Amino acid sequence: MESIAFVKGHGTRNDFVLLPDPDGQRVLTAELAIALCDRRSGIGADGVLRVVRTAADPAAAAMADAATWFMDYRNADGSLSETCGNGLRVFARYLVDSDLAQPGELSIATRGGVVTVWLKAAGDVTVDMGAPQLSAAATATVDGEVFEGVAVSMGNPHLVCVTDVDIASLDLTTMPDVDGLAFPDGVNVEFVNIVGDRHAQMRVYERGSGETQSCGSGACAVVAAMAALDGDHSGEYIVDVPGGRLCIRFDDAGHLLLRGPAVVVADGTFRVDQS
Amino acid sequence: MESIAFVKGHGTRNDFVLLPDPDGQRVLTAELAIALCDRRSGIGADGVLRVVRTAADPAAAAMADAATWFMDYRNADGSLSETCGNGLRVFARYLVDSDLAQPGELSIATRGGVVTVWLKAAGDVTVDMGAPQLSAAATATVDGEVFEGVAVSMGNPHLVCVTDVDIASLDLTTMPDVDGLAFPDGVNVEFVNIVGDRHAQMRVYERGSGETQSCGSGACAVVAAMAALDGDHSGEYIVDVPGGRLCIRFDDAGHLLLRGPAVVVADGTFRVDQS
Repeated sequence: MESIAFVKGHGTRNDFVLLPDPDGQRVLTAELAIALCDRRSGIGADGVLRVVRTAADPAAAAMADAATWFMDYRNADGSLSETCGNGLRVFARYLVDSDLAQPGELSIATRGGVVTVWLKAAGDVTVDMGAPQLSAAATATVDGEVFEGVAVSMGNPHLVCVTDVDIASLDLTTMPDVDGLAFPDGVNVEFVNIVGDRHAQMRVYERGSGETQSCGSGACAVVAAMAALDGDHSGEYIVDVPGGRLCIRFDDAGHLLLRGPAVVVADGTFRVDQS
Repeated sequence: MESIAFVKGHGTRNDFVLLPDPDGQRVLTAELAIALCDRRSGIGADGVLRVVRTAADPAAAAMADAATWFMDYRNADGSLSETCGNGLRVFARYLVDSDLAQPGELSIATRGGVVTVWLKAAGDVTVDMGAPQLSAAATATVDGEVFEGVAVSMGNPHLVCVTDVDIASLDLTTMPDVDGLAFPDGVNVEFVNIVGDRHAQMRVYERGSGETQSCGSGACAVVAAMAALDGDHSGEYIVDVPGGRLCIRFDDAGHLLLRGPAVVVADGTFRVDQS
């Protein structure tokens, strides 16, 4: 029977199985990711984060000078993703909790490049999510109701719909119909109520996953759209997601810095052949 | 930080967190069960099975002569349950895998009394689910469509609706409307297609949980209703649930013996204060 050491953590209820593999002795296959993420027969998670030294993985070795650790990420459906804001926060929290990295500023390699993360010995974790790019308008339709939105790229595609309709009333059990722009790789759709100064509530339908409890890049896309409405790309915003609260601010370079909780809740051994 | 050793297992995708506590040093509170069963911030499960020596728990000590181990069970919502057929199979598999019991015939104490279980060193686990009691007819309505059913008690209440309507087409996202009988403690509703000789497919809406992947007592209730239709209370039946296949047969005393897979997939340590 093959056994694998695992760690479980979450950031605003976006949850991950981490596979410590410092020396790169394991391949994170789609099949293994699917088995681990199965919420009945596996551990259960939104995705898997393999924790490997950058120099020990051919997919990341070119970044070895810039980052000690590589976040090898797969979604629960087994697909590869370049990066994941909430995943990065949990990944960094694990490194520090396990004494694999010191608190402070960390550089973490991802398939999307090297990302900077800041954290203390305990508490919130902040991730540099890069600069948002706003593009054209489009619409999302839910149950026949049409919502105006704006396309925002955070590396991955979003359609942010700010509305006066109470987002709690929306039925997001199926993907909204998106019209007016082509999204060849699919799109994540955010529905947003402004509830105060620089303070929003959002729900998100993620491509391939359905409605989720939190989406870090989605919250950043929401802030980008709010800042465009305000004409002010500075300062800090609060975005409440179903799984908790995220704080997002612009840095001097126009990047969005995503801050929020990230915790490790369990560790153990998974029996691969039993699931 | 408080840490708890846990084990995760499932039977036909009805999944459980087990808490090994042989000497009865822990109280399984509703709050702990809810935290452990949370599928984002906890381990995630349909219920928690505390594994304690019968003599070491005041709630079970009266059964100490008949059963060495007590299955202290709470549902994911923190409520107490008397017993759970799939849970008993996983509980017994854990005892044997961990050398806490020998393969063969086991007696396990539950809040519903002592239950007999049979298992080998590997493979399926069989549980004596007791004798079914059929009572009156009632109906369940789904999306305006009325299904005729029969009430069956397996210790817990069921309404079994055998139908020619394809059960895969039913929307069970909300509790069916039950009419014609009073179920003061609520009722589990099974929808059944007969797909062969002594072979059924079922879906189940469990009170308090919604649609689940498997329900051991529900599958037994289905067999009781099928046997009543056939006028033959003997032999073996197959009931396919969304999470797998269960085999159920009558013993000479008219009890239903539930057989199916049960596996332990992981073990580890849960950080109570982090979730």
